[in-house]
Amino acid sequence: MKTDIQIAQEATMDPITDIAHTLGIPDDEIELYGRYKAKISLKAFDRLERQADGKLILVTAINPTPAGEGKTTTTVGLGDALHRLGKKVVIALREPSLGPSFGVKGGAAGGGYAQIVPMEDINLHFTGDFHAITSAHNLLAAMLDNSIQQGNPLNIDPRQVVFRRVVDLNDRALRNTIIGLGGKADGVPRQSGFDITVASELMAILCLSKDLMDLKARCAKIVVAYTYDGRPVTAANLEAQGSMAVLMKDAIKPNLVQTLEHTPAFVHGGPFANIAHGCNSVIATRMALKLGDYCVTEAGFGADLGAEKFYNLKCRFAGLKPACTVIVATVRALKSHGGVPKTELNQEDLEALAEGFGNLEKHIENVSKFGVPAVVAINAFPTDTKAELDYVYARCREMGVDVALSEVWAKGGEGGIELAEKVIAAIENKPSRFQVLYDTELPIKAKIATIVREVYGGSDVTFSAEAEKHIQTFTELGYGHLPICMAKTQYSLSDDMSKIGRPSGFTVGVREVRLSAGAGFLVAITGAIMTMPGLPKRPAACSIDIDENGKIVGLF
Amino acid sequence: MKTDIQIAQEATMDPITDIAHTLGIPDDEIELYGRYKAKISLKAFDRLERQADGKLILVTAINPTPAGEGKTTTTVGLGDALHRLGKKVVIALREPSLGPSFGVKGGAAGGGYAQIVPMEDINLHFTGDFHAITSAHNLLAAMLDNSIQQGNPLNIDPRQVVFRRVVDLNDRALRNTIIGLGGKADGVPRQSGFDITVASELMAILCLSKDLMDLKARCAKIVVAYTYDGRPVTAANLEAQGSMAVLMKDAIKPNLVQTLEHTPAFVHGGPFANIAHGCNSVIATRMALKLGDYCVTEAGFGADLGAEKFYNLKCRFAGLKPACTVIVATVRALKSHGGVPKTELNQEDLEALAEGFGNLEKHIENVSKFGVPAVVAINAFPTDTKAELDYVYARCREMGVDVALSEVWAKGGEGGIELAEKVIAAIENKPSRFQVLYDTELPIKAKIATIVREVYGGSDVTFSAEAEKHIQTFTELGYGHLPICMAKTQYSLSDDMSKIGRPSGFTVGVREVRLSAGAGFLVAITGAIMTMPGLPKRPAACSIDIDENGKIVGLF
Repeated sequence: MKTDIQIAQEATMDPITDIAHTLGIPDDEIELYGRYKAKISLKAFDRLERQADGKLILVTAINPTPAGEGKTTTTVGLGDALHRLGKKVVIALREPSLGPSFGVKGGAAGGGYAQIVPMEDINLHFTGDFHAITSAHNLLAAMLDNSIQQGNPLNIDPRQVVFRRVVDLNDRALRNTIIGLGGKADGVPRQSGFDITVASELMAILCLSKDLMDLKARCAKIVVAYTYDGRPVTAANLEAQGSMAVLMKDAIKPNLVQTLEHTPAFVHGGPFANIAHGCNSVIATRMALKLGDYCVTEAGFGADLGAEKFYNLKCRFAGLKPACTVIVATVRALKSHGGVPKTELNQEDLEALAEGFGNLEKHIENVSKFGVPAVVAINAFPTDTKAELDYVYARCREMGVDVALSEVWAKGGEGGIELAEKVIAAIENKPSRFQVLYDTELPIKAKIATIVREVYGGSDVTFSAEAEKHIQTFTELGYGHLPICMAKTQYSLSDDMSKIGRPSGFTVGVREVRLSAGAGFLVAITGAIMTMPGLPKRPAACSIDIDENGKIVGLF
Repeated sequence: MKTDIQIAQEATMDPITDIAHTLGIPDDEIELYGRYKAKISLKAFDRLERQADGKLILVTAINPTPAGEGKTTTTVGLGDALHRLGKKVVIALREPSLGPSFGVKGGAAGGGYAQIVPMEDINLHFTGDFHAITSAHNLLAAMLDNSIQQGNPLNIDPRQVVFRRVVDLNDRALRNTIIGLGGKADGVPRQSGFDITVASELMAILCLSKDLMDLKARCAKIVVAYTYDGRPVTAANLEAQGSMAVLMKDAIKPNLVQTLEHTPAFVHGGPFANIAHGCNSVIATRMALKLGDYCVTEAGFGADLGAEKFYNLKCRFAGLKPACTVIVATVRALKSHGGVPKTELNQEDLEALAEGFGNLEKHIENVSKFGVPAVVAINAFPTDTKAELDYVYARCREMGVDVALSEVWAKGGEGGIELAEKVIAAIENKPSRFQVLYDTELPIKAKIATIVREVYGGSDVTFSAEAEKHIQTFTELGYGHLPICMAKTQYSLSDDMSKIGRPSGFTVGVREVRLSAGAGFLVAITGAIMTMPGLPKRPAACSIDIDENGKIVGLF
């Protein structure tokens, strides 16, 4: 069996200008990065102003399990299937981070015969967006420490600096640091640390901005520290937003690539799905909607985090209206939610499947709470039995939701025709009555409680003393009206990763609340949250190599 | 008077494919980065294998003064002048670092009407080379700390880690840090720090490699730490070189841009001129020599550092033979070397000029020691008097060296015609008998002493106890045969920046010796050496901005 990288390396790509031309993009809006990658100028929005939007399809999933779900693969394959059916379709995905690529084996460009290409470039530096974010982020951090060093005119309390630095790598040794050591010329010593670039607030800002001026205005609002008397210090106070926008002037333009089947795909932005909202850029999604009759996009983690934040944050901010939501599940993952250990997932187990179906059931219910029609995609595995598939189909039909088997990993777009047809039917027959789940004017605690009760199915929320203090402070400082970005384990509907399936009666504990004033949300943190991954005992980087012909091995 | 950025923004550029075509580069060797930047495939070397090399012209300068010399401007202007004379010429320059651009106002793309464009892109992310180096460097650092964390199988002594991390910014607070704090899962606490990316050994490696496999082999040799029993630990021991090469697979390809007058220019690599050799990549220079009849290039700092390292390191490693060397001086800078304070440089002062000429005189003598014909370029200023210019001309003629007034800043290539004609004449009439100055098989101390006596004009060298120990260790470990990269103040021929003009009888003190085993040299450090600059009280970043039309202000 071929690996993902082998399949990708054997692909014959069309020149990206040809792909752009199929979407009617003129040459002067195409900025080439080599032959197979391009940035599209935001001038396209002016040209397309009167163009009606296409239909927005979100691909989300059940809570992830060790069995794997294949959400990106399904997104790419669904796009290819719609393409095969003659539809004008544009895919919109997140950009991968370098950290995981060199840490734990695993790319983020789909899999099998449902991939975006050139997969190596996409998984490496791509068009430099993440490097631009890293530079702009760290410039702000350097200007902050420099202000403290140079007489501290803003009265910044070095103990209350909340803005860390970033690198786009997995580097646990940088999680907690002391900086500014060395002497009088070398800064003011203080405790600090590094996050991975995808956890930067700038990444969330890039993904929520409607244009470069909006990005600059959002950068200006980033709260980086507090003064000795508790007032917030922003990037604007440091006069940093202009330089930050200059550094991100190209990063804000969406990147166009193609699938193995030459379906156009925007791959742009990649905010963490825990402390940020985990969706590709609003700009890429909006441009895809202007250029295509259908835009297929995805959101990070399971639907309790990904879809909830896609609806309540991204769609709310950008005024987007999703037409259909695809929920990806596998028979193996549902059995895993029913308590079957990974080693035994190849055996038929209808009892466990019935138990684990509860997880999918809750996500189906949730999507309908947002007024969006759902279609379930069962990502096929060779070990699935007919009885198991029949069971899932029957349960979905009982709930009045369409279900389709997806074989895109093995067959590309051809394996997604049934799914594509059911998605089209759902869009045509079940008009979306999309609505967000809460009013931002509600108090912070009420907004969090709504998500916990309505989406997670929990019975209550508790707040630590620290979280209580944060909520009071942010409310007093005028940030109480911001929507909520939940940071929670992705493995359970609850905040306890051991509670698989469809737990109930649980209480969610909010440990901490953080402010992302530039992105425009408050992060409610439940449990431990990882903003800087570590490398494993033997990093993937040890096996990655390139030969004299430029052929790469070991990357995914 | 227009600023550099205004002149650059008003420029009409040719599509970079047109520029490449004038050099006979076929489309399949051109990788576009937008319309005006391209990387050229190393396949070009195969195509051009039998092509004779053009003539290599190095532009260097007297020791820098606060008055400014205009070395890059002269390099660009000389290229434009040769172009105007109908010569097939290719310029080869270093890439600028983001740090200075956002720190102290000042770009690195020439000035006035002798600039390379698109200057904004060149001074920002350009084609991402520095970001690739930053990523590869920091990946190696992360793998190193991860190895210590994961049971330390290589027996690395955390107190003897010599490989730091890098960011491409001026950030003094990162000079000295403690990392690995936090607890058992967060690494092993140790002292460390960050350098600016241009100070990375990987930058020097990129600039000295002949191809990607050479780069990988050099990366493998980087010594990152020592074991508890004193044995060197390399990147190869950490199995990092394959991933590092993958991350630098595009960075190794030279970047083609153009001057304001459409002369082709490679801008590739930018190693620090103190702890590294301060020249653009060997690959760019070699490709320029294959594509043009003339290649005009430059080296960092004054000729005592820049030209010496260009000859003894870059030319030695790459087998290059310079045909001519241009030494840039200004009347103002020579008066400054004669002791005139900056505020009084506008007044005629023949006595100070005579005194300061000694600095230029020594550099002229030095260039002839390497067997290379020299031409002096006087970068014209409006305040230069006829008597002053006559004096400089007369003294140069006495020394048998050609001299030309360069007005390229004000007039572009037209202002460099006299210089270009004298350079051509020197190349035609004075065949280069280039030779390096020392045999690498000499002991380390003898190599350093040769440079100090022959190039700097000093009488002796002393070594600190620490340097003695380094020299003994490196000799024992088998690194004694490497050539020397001197790290010294650029402001004086001596190691004391206050000794301007042409000092004599001085002793140079070597404080420390560092090993760059991948780059292939030993760094002899005299005095304080800066590998991470700081931001000034009001960073340039505070004045940089971009408007809704994408127009940038405040950048240079």
